[in-house]
Amino acid sequence: MINGARLIGIGVGPGDPGLVTLNAIAALKAADIVAHFAKAGNESNARTIAARHFKDGIEELALLYPVTTEIPKADAAYRKAIRAFYDGAAAEIAARLDAGKVVAVIAEGDPLFYGSYMHLHVRLASRYQTEIVAGVTGMSGCWSAIGAPIAQGNDVFTVIPGTLPEYELERRLTDTDAAVVMKIGRHLAKVRRALERAGRLDRAIYVERGTMTNAAVMPLADKLDTFAPYFAMVLVPGWEGRP
Amino acid sequence: MINGARLIGIGVGPGDPGLVTLNAIAALKAADIVAHFAKAGNESNARTIAARHFKDGIEELALLYPVTTEIPKADAAYRKAIRAFYDGAAAEIAARLDAGKVVAVIAEGDPLFYGSYMHLHVRLASRYQTEIVAGVTGMSGCWSAIGAPIAQGNDVFTVIPGTLPEYELERRLTDTDAAVVMKIGRHLAKVRRALERAGRLDRAIYVERGTMTNAAVMPLADKLDTFAPYFAMVLVPGWEGRP
Repeated sequence: MINGARLIGIGVGPGDPGLVTLNAIAALKAADIVAHFAKAGNESNARTIAARHFKDGIEELALLYPVTTEIPKADAAYRKAIRAFYDGAAAEIAARLDAGKVVAVIAEGDPLFYGSYMHLHVRLASRYQTEIVAGVTGMSGCWSAIGAPIAQGNDVFTVIPGTLPEYELERRLTDTDAAVVMKIGRHLAKVRRALERAGRLDRAIYVERGTMTNAAVMPLADKLDTFAPYFAMVLVPGWEGRP
Repeated sequence: MINGARLIGIGVGPGDPGLVTLNAIAALKAADIVAHFAKAGNESNARTIAARHFKDGIEELALLYPVTTEIPKADAAYRKAIRAFYDGAAAEIAARLDAGKVVAVIAEGDPLFYGSYMHLHVRLASRYQTEIVAGVTGMSGCWSAIGAPIAQGNDVFTVIPGTLPEYELERRLTDTDAAVVMKIGRHLAKVRRALERAGRLDRAIYVERGTMTNAAVMPLADKLDTFAPYFAMVLVPGWEGRP
């Protein structure tokens, strides 16, 4: 391990710059280099949230996905391309750690909860000193923005990707007290049908850009079109036996 | 609605005072009164985390649970006592809101995720202006403290109370990619047996006081005694098919 070299995965929260933590700001002050993920041609959301805390003249390392997340992940070409991308990104960061630098990777939400940073972490954590700054998750940002109590007491709470087959969505939505369905995108109509058959459609809330000023929130039952962005989510609050 | 009166549920994160957000600090500066929950005789954990941000001379309202959370919740006497307690706490806060005050209720973790604040929210949100400041959850604090990537890609992630019957724990642990088992306490031996039968014991990590300086972390398989505090948790990382 090189003297002083350190990899820091920093959660910068769900979108509102006020949901950044003091530890995140301190870690950004300590960093020599800040890396962030984005699709080519887009600005990194994490950068938009946290750039105000970057030191003057800090080195930035933009890690640009070679393919979008809309390609089926089972596809061998996708897996090969994405693996090569993460290998390359990890190598770029390793070169800077080998030079004794402190490298921060900023992540929307929480770095170890469905975050791209995890792909770097598993490639580097055995060789370098690492540190994680936990962040407010996107889902916490959403239920807080709309004031929806999500789970309480002995509730079982499940995070379900909208990409699952319809029968699997229905089964899991029937078998949990509270749920968040993520990655809605082109799966919206299927998710709505699964919620209806699970008898939970009346409790489901559709949330788009939850913590942004241009948030869109409505009962899912009232959303009659089938268009949703990839990062939209559906909240199904539990706690039905509230005292 | 009274001019200026506002109820703010503030998440102050899992324990490390550095995991407080900028919005939480700003909300504390705006509050006339800060309320916090604790067992009688104990200091509120949320207060310990956030007191450094209280305004000089702020009014504090300590809400002291009449019974501990270790009494079975199905017990009618428990439910009656706890309901009367939350009704009384809501009335105390309502009196201050009726006087036009800004009342902040601080909560460990995230206010709407298994938090006591929720009991006040459902009693007051229809009558008063409310605002929620999302917080870093206790579980995020735990997996971050130990650098354990918890869920990725199309993983299903489940939060399971350790209070469930053993067969139900086993069934749910078999049927999820990643899990957090909460409220371990006197349920430790049962949770360990359920994980073993679900074939997940080798991945399970026991975490006590995750984000505190006196944290205790070990593979659950290595924890041979049956003593755990109520707020200990067990993490079962997913992402077994990592690319």
